[in-house]
Amino acid sequence: MNPARGNGVKVVGIDPGSLVTGYGVIEVSGSSVRALEYSVIRTNPRDPLERRLAQIYNGLVEMLERCGPRIMAVEEVFYRKNFRSAVMIGEARGIAMLAAANCGIAVESYPPARIKQAVVGNGRAVKGQVNSMVSRILSLPAAPEEDAADALAAALCHSHTLSSRRVQLR
Amino acid sequence: MNPARGNGVKVVGIDPGSLVTGYGVIEVSGSSVRALEYSVIRTNPRDPLERRLAQIYNGLVEMLERCGPRIMAVEEVFYRKNFRSAVMIGEARGIAMLAAANCGIAVESYPPARIKQAVVGNGRAVKGQVNSMVSRILSLPAAPEEDAADALAAALCHSHTLSSRRVQLR
Repeated sequence: MNPARGNGVKVVGIDPGSLVTGYGVIEVSGSSVRALEYSVIRTNPRDPLERRLAQIYNGLVEMLERCGPRIMAVEEVFYRKNFRSAVMIGEARGIAMLAAANCGIAVESYPPARIKQAVVGNGRAVKGQVNSMVSRILSLPAAPEEDAADALAAALCHSHTLSSRRVQLR
Repeated sequence: MNPARGNGVKVVGIDPGSLVTGYGVIEVSGSSVRALEYSVIRTNPRDPLERRLAQIYNGLVEMLERCGPRIMAVEEVFYRKNFRSAVMIGEARGIAMLAAANCGIAVESYPPARIKQAVVGNGRAVKGQVNSMVSRILSLPAAPEEDAADALAAALCHSHTLSSRRVQLR
């Protein structure tokens, strides 16, 4: 299957992190949605941070060019254990948004609670619930890695926005 | 003056921010240090964040290619008023580090207290003190913009590390 072909709207979700960045591309056609590709980009914590960020950037640009999504959905960051970890998420998040900008793809940010609400129907759902609902909605053969599941959840959240816009337009 | 010419070690300091990113390039030759170029990259807060990050990236890459520093010095982020602002600093910080990586420049991070100690001699110095000491050390004709001064301070902090390494080697 060539993920670049298809008639629906392609949305890529990103779960940014400097150690592991998850991504998931879905295609939305009317009321049906399917996963085209999902995986993670891992970097070596012993490498300098700037090299790891460049690996994430290059990996994302390669994927965006190959899959051709129209929109990137990224989770907003509201809370982390400490400021240093919030900064680190931001570093990878900035890289993902730059990759989108340089590939001509618009970015939409969604609060974590809205993503959980869209996927599980409960804004306070826990990680495991998000993962299993993502697998069920997209009929995945096996549970994806956590960061890829979170990325697919962000993409699914955006697809809900697309569906509700269509409903409003009718 | 062509900032790419000179025999000393060129260091660029960066003060990252998605609204204003400051940069300052200095040249260190033995015990003397001079400013080659310092300024800020401003973005329009009404533009989408991904476009602003791309403007910062393009501006930094253009400056790095023109000035040819060997090292980029960036302040570490320990504390911000809230997590959202820590994430935003991180976004711009990631962009600056990616620009360095893609220009083949190594990155060094310095804690804020160490930068203040290096420039003012006091790790708890306030903003105004940093700015006036940066102007004095580099004999600047006028006080630079705050973000450019902070960027020059990070570069000066790295130049201190260079000097102390030389002293240790003797």
